Amino acid sequence: MILSALLTSVGINLGLCFLFFTLYSILRNQPGNRIVYAPRLIDKEKKSPQTDNFNLERLLPSPGWVRRAWAPSEDELLSTLGLDAVVFMRIFILSLKVFIVGAIIGIFILLPINFLGNQLSYDFSDLPNKSLDSFSISNVDVGSNRLWIHFSAAYIFTAVVCYLLYHEYSYISLKRVSHFYSSKPQPHQYTILVRSIPSSGRSLNEVVESFFQEYHPSTYLSHTVVRRTSKIQELISDAEKMYRRLSHLNSNKDSHKRYKRDGFLGLFGQKVDLLDQYEKRLEDLRDNVRIEQASLAVKEVPAAFVSFKSHFGAAIAQNIQQGVNPTEWVTEQAPEPQDVYWPFFSASFMKRWICKLLVVVASIALTILFLLPVLLVQGLTHLEQLETWFPFLKSILRLKVISQVITGYLPSLILQLFLSFVPPIMILLSSIQGHISLSQIEKSACFKVWWFTVWNIFFANVLSGTALYHVQLIFEPKKIPQVLAEGVPAQASFFIAYVVTSGWTSISSELFRLFPLICSFMSRLFSQDASDELEVPSIPYHSEIPRIMFFGLLGITYFFLAPLILPFLLVYYCLGYIIYRNQLMNVYAPKFETGGKFWPIVHNSIIFSLILMHVIAIGIFGLKKLPLASSLTIPLPILTLLFNDYCRKRFLPIFEAFPTECLVKKDRADQNDPSMTEFYEKLVTAYQDPALMPVQYSRSTEGHSSPLLHSVEV
Amino acid sequence: MILSALLTSVGINLGLCFLFFTLYSILRNQPGNRIVYAPRLIDKEKKSPQTDNFNLERLLPSPGWVRRAWAPSEDELLSTLGLDAVVFMRIFILSLKVFIVGAIIGIFILLPINFLGNQLSYDFSDLPNKSLDSFSISNVDVGSNRLWIHFSAAYIFTAVVCYLLYHEYSYISLKRVSHFYSSKPQPHQYTILVRSIPSSGRSLNEVVESFFQEYHPSTYLSHTVVRRTSKIQELISDAEKMYRRLSHLNSNKDSHKRYKRDGFLGLFGQKVDLLDQYEKRLEDLRDNVRIEQASLAVKEVPAAFVSFKSHFGAAIAQNIQQGVNPTEWVTEQAPEPQDVYWPFFSASFMKRWICKLLVVVASIALTILFLLPVLLVQGLTHLEQLETWFPFLKSILRLKVISQVITGYLPSLILQLFLSFVPPIMILLSSIQGHISLSQIEKSACFKVWWFTVWNIFFANVLSGTALYHVQLIFEPKKIPQVLAEGVPAQASFFIAYVVTSGWTSISSELFRLFPLICSFMSRLFSQDASDELEVPSIPYHSEIPRIMFFGLLGITYFFLAPLILPFLLVYYCLGYIIYRNQLMNVYAPKFETGGKFWPIVHNSIIFSLILMHVIAIGIFGLKKLPLASSLTIPLPILTLLFNDYCRKRFLPIFEAFPTECLVKKDRADQNDPSMTEFYEKLVTAYQDPALMPVQYSRSTEGHSSPLLHSVEV
Repeated sequence: MILSALLTSVGINLGLCFLFFTLYSILRNQPGNRIVYAPRLIDKEKKSPQTDNFNLERLLPSPGWVRRAWAPSEDELLSTLGLDAVVFMRIFILSLKVFIVGAIIGIFILLPINFLGNQLSYDFSDLPNKSLDSFSISNVDVGSNRLWIHFSAAYIFTAVVCYLLYHEYSYISLKRVSHFYSSKPQPHQYTILVRSIPSSGRSLNEVVESFFQEYHPSTYLSHTVVRRTSKIQELISDAEKMYRRLSHLNSNKDSHKRYKRDGFLGLFGQKVDLLDQYEKRLEDLRDNVRIEQASLAVKEVPAAFVSFKSHFGAAIAQNIQQGVNPTEWVTEQAPEPQDVYWPFFSASFMKRWICKLLVVVASIALTILFLLPVLLVQGLTHLEQLETWFPFLKSILRLKVISQVITGYLPSLILQLFLSFVPPIMILLSSIQGHISLSQIEKSACFKVWWFTVWNIFFANVLSGTALYHVQLIFEPKKIPQVLAEGVPAQASFFIAYVVTSGWTSISSELFRLFPLICSFMSRLFSQDASDELEVPSIPYHSEIPRIMFFGLLGITYFFLAPLILPFLLVYYCLGYIIYRNQLMNVYAPKFETGGKFWPIVHNSIIFSLILMHVIAIGIFGLKKLPLASSLTIPLPILTLLFNDYCRKRFLPIFEAFPTECLVKKDRADQNDPSMTEFYEKLVTAYQDPALMPVQYSRSTEGHSSPLLHSVEV
Repeated sequence: MILSALLTSVGINLGLCFLFFTLYSILRNQPGNRIVYAPRLIDKEKKSPQTDNFNLERLLPSPGWVRRAWAPSEDELLSTLGLDAVVFMRIFILSLKVFIVGAIIGIFILLPINFLGNQLSYDFSDLPNKSLDSFSISNVDVGSNRLWIHFSAAYIFTAVVCYLLYHEYSYISLKRVSHFYSSKPQPHQYTILVRSIPSSGRSLNEVVESFFQEYHPSTYLSHTVVRRTSKIQELISDAEKMYRRLSHLNSNKDSHKRYKRDGFLGLFGQKVDLLDQYEKRLEDLRDNVRIEQASLAVKEVPAAFVSFKSHFGAAIAQNIQQGVNPTEWVTEQAPEPQDVYWPFFSASFMKRWICKLLVVVASIALTILFLLPVLLVQGLTHLEQLETWFPFLKSILRLKVISQVITGYLPSLILQLFLSFVPPIMILLSSIQGHISLSQIEKSACFKVWWFTVWNIFFANVLSGTALYHVQLIFEPKKIPQVLAEGVPAQASFFIAYVVTSGWTSISSELFRLFPLICSFMSRLFSQDASDELEVPSIPYHSEIPRIMFFGLLGITYFFLAPLILPFLLVYYCLGYIIYRNQLMNVYAPKFETGGKFWPIVHNSIIFSLILMHVIAIGIFGLKKLPLASSLTIPLPILTLLFNDYCRKRFLPIFEAFPTECLVKKDRADQNDPSMTEFYEKLVTAYQDPALMPVQYSRSTEGHSSPLLHSVEV
């Protein structure tokens, strides 16, 4: 890619970003769009939308929201949005810090050195037509001693990144502890999940009760045995659909405007019948649910949520193996009640182990083999092929516009289409894996999507052309540095363009929220009560974090290969920081709180990126005939791995469980809380399966049903 | 190697074994040798040696001891010798079971098939001169369908071994639990070791006391801060030496026989002076020890043994991270008081981490590079070389006997000499690694010696000839099966000879205990009280288990390659079983009791052997042009690894810590024990460093000093 082409692309994409920002600044001022651009605030305030007074100011773009997005301090974010949101924002801050340092070294020291090299013989005078490669390390002469500057830069940059990582890990782990101290007593802190309960004929209720009263007499409080409720869940979701249709029909009946439309379509006569019919069906469903709920006693799953009287009591039961057989009475920390993923409570230890193995194999297979079907389908879109298959289309296909669309756009559309299936598939795989909370599923999917992205976008591009060559590499690890050093710098311009087109615009269009906007517009056109339908979205960690970290990987690996990428990345992280700080305060509401448990994934991915950079450096110095520099780089990945090992030992335990010191202090603080008696009462029923709550749909009340917190256990 | 040569070797070695057995059967009947052949019994009984009545029967070999060695049941062994000894014996039993199955399949099915092959064209009629290779898989025709029988045998044998392993793991883990239930309350069960205690100015005593009273108020009992006592230990060992010399001189003075000899040597006059001088020095040393002990308060190490009132209390403090910083207040299970390795209580978490890394690197370097200096030194023993260096030896070196010894025997002597240094070096490395108990050091050294043996005896022989070729293999793992399949069968006869010469004779000579016998003989010649000097040896797990398991590896890998090795192995395990059952009941006394923690190492080494067999099988079927069999073998190692993973999950936790169920039950049982008050009192001082005990050497008492259990803490 030549410089002028890149500048054109940058111009177009900057324009697009500016357009998105302007449109957003206008659209967000429209009260009707408040449900799209500030659902979190609406949900929080539970106020009716503002009155619809038209004024001209509403149509003028105002950048005030950017200022407002910057305004709140981290502590304010922490108290309103929780630690996960803060950690999410700190990923952007860390990336900005890393790439500011990287950009200073890269642009002011490495770039001039690269540019002054003579390896690639281009015309010097014609700057705009110069290939981007002349800014990369490829342009440095073979054997040049200037490469020692790159060598030093690799060491310095690694040291800086490690220092920042250490600081960040320490900061977040301290925040995690102080967040724990300052939090209100929460059910999941007092509860553990016990799985693989051996029954031996007695009812699980009795078994759990007697086990914990025997071995934890002073701390045991209560328990809830999990039941197989998939059938009830189906019935309830049917009933909910039916109820929505019913209330929709009802509201249409009451509204004068709708009468007319219905009359026009000639459907009014049938409507009253429909109403009766629907109500009858709803009543049936409701009865079925009640019958199913009553028969549930027999459908016990050998798992139970066991609550204790103190944090420490729960931690003891969680950290020490309970039964003599380690595959029975398996304990783990309970997720928050709203975070529990009810549909999948797989039965035995053995079954979960096998499921996990299968999912790991499936994920690896999907990651490695993903490109094969894509290439296959892309191969089908050749013009000649289509003409042979569909001869009647021949005349249309011969039109220049059509053929250009098919050959130029269709393959990448197919790739994008296939790619868009990946995060949902990974979420599905993670949910089969046996995780019992949404947060674990998100975390696991996040990890999977990250590897998928690295393999299918980074490695597939770098190793492209050599079809299955990269599979061979596994068996000849010695050649990896060389192959990467040949492939990676050559793709620099591709990845710069990728950051600009895919990164900038996609993150700006995130702001614009096109799809919810259309939904909101459509629903306002047809119905008045649709505002209740749009729910507050949760941050899609599993797709966002891998993307942010993938750009981080690009920045780190290209830092000394082609530093030109760094300013573009800085723009991406700035945009991301502003936009997510804003769509966090207005749009997203965290559905769960892991207390920053996403951080270790981010840390590990940065360490991986560093190691990858080192491997490429070893290869590059080898290619550039500087074997000494190549050998002297080898300690760098080893030191980085040792640093990582130290961090794992120093900080990771805090992310897995809280220590005695914290637990006992928190217990003492909680004991002085006058609301504890009330909390204990709530705790007993906190882990009821929502499917077991009494069903309460009433035609008279509008909006969603709010089931009462009654147990219906038999 | 040809069959007749093997038979000759077998004959010679069987003869040697028979000789050792006969000599032992005679020598053990001599009451004077009782100290050599039954030190454990003497130590236990604390009786004076039997009277020295001569009778002819004593000179007749009697096989009665073999019968007596078989007699006691496993429960009797368990109660007298502990679980470790039982596990040690069960390794032999398991090996016997595995190789009986292996031998049945190998000798009756595989061996005839191999023998009937035509790949190696030897003369058929001349059986005694037939190469052993004609009994191995090398003789099966390329592409022959008979190889499918080998293929099935590999699957069946793996299944049988896995079944036996599972059964054994289950058996030993149950034994471990029941041993725990039936044991008397022991200090280490109630105690944890806390390291990396943050001091922040205050004395460690206060810090530990306040921390555990704060966070474990109901279970904390007492603690003992560890102190730096290396200087005192030196002084005490000096004093002990001096004391021994003194008591030796004293006994000589009193004995009439010695007077004469001393008179003859003209030393008697000096003797009284010496006595006074020694006593003076001993007194000085004693004073120095007291002064050092008194000044110890300042030499605290940030580590302490903390005792609790119950098993469960100790387990809670051990299993849950204590401080907010996971690198402080690091807890682990305390070893038994007599098992504590006092000299090395390295200070900080960081220092121990670095030490561990360095030791790992050093062990790997020693293992991989061991053969280089050996080859170098062996190279120096060439005759011409020696003649050039020492020209005056020329005439001697030209003698045929001398030259034969130098060229034929010296290289293997050098190898044996170097090899004999390995277990002590591994013990040294393990003790630097930061382990704080002898049992952990033994376990760690056992693991290191096992890998050393596998690498330097198995792989070095298999891959010999291609000097550094095996280092290259790491970078081309795809070629490993092929290289192994080429190298391993070719070494079959070498390893058969190795089992016969090294295995049979060394284990039989173990029985004979030549070195202690000479010592005993010498000491009886010169002194009367020497019987006190010979101490009861402990089983050298770190050198015995690797040897037993190495023969296991040979048996498993050669099972279908050259089944001829199996009967020889069976003889080895039978001999080992009888001899160790006997050196356990009479000779060895366990110095510590890990409760069978050696078992997982044995399990893992068997799994490794199986995987190695599978890899060789994949290679062999490839070489024999049976690619389908080669591919179909690939699932076998995967299944084996999955089986191993399941075993780790199912049984390993029991070997790491006891579950709540056991702990609470044991606590309740102990609470009913009337001796608990007394036990608690003992517990408080159980973890006193022996160097801090008051020194009590008195000329009037004979034998070793028995220090009083008094604390001298300031």
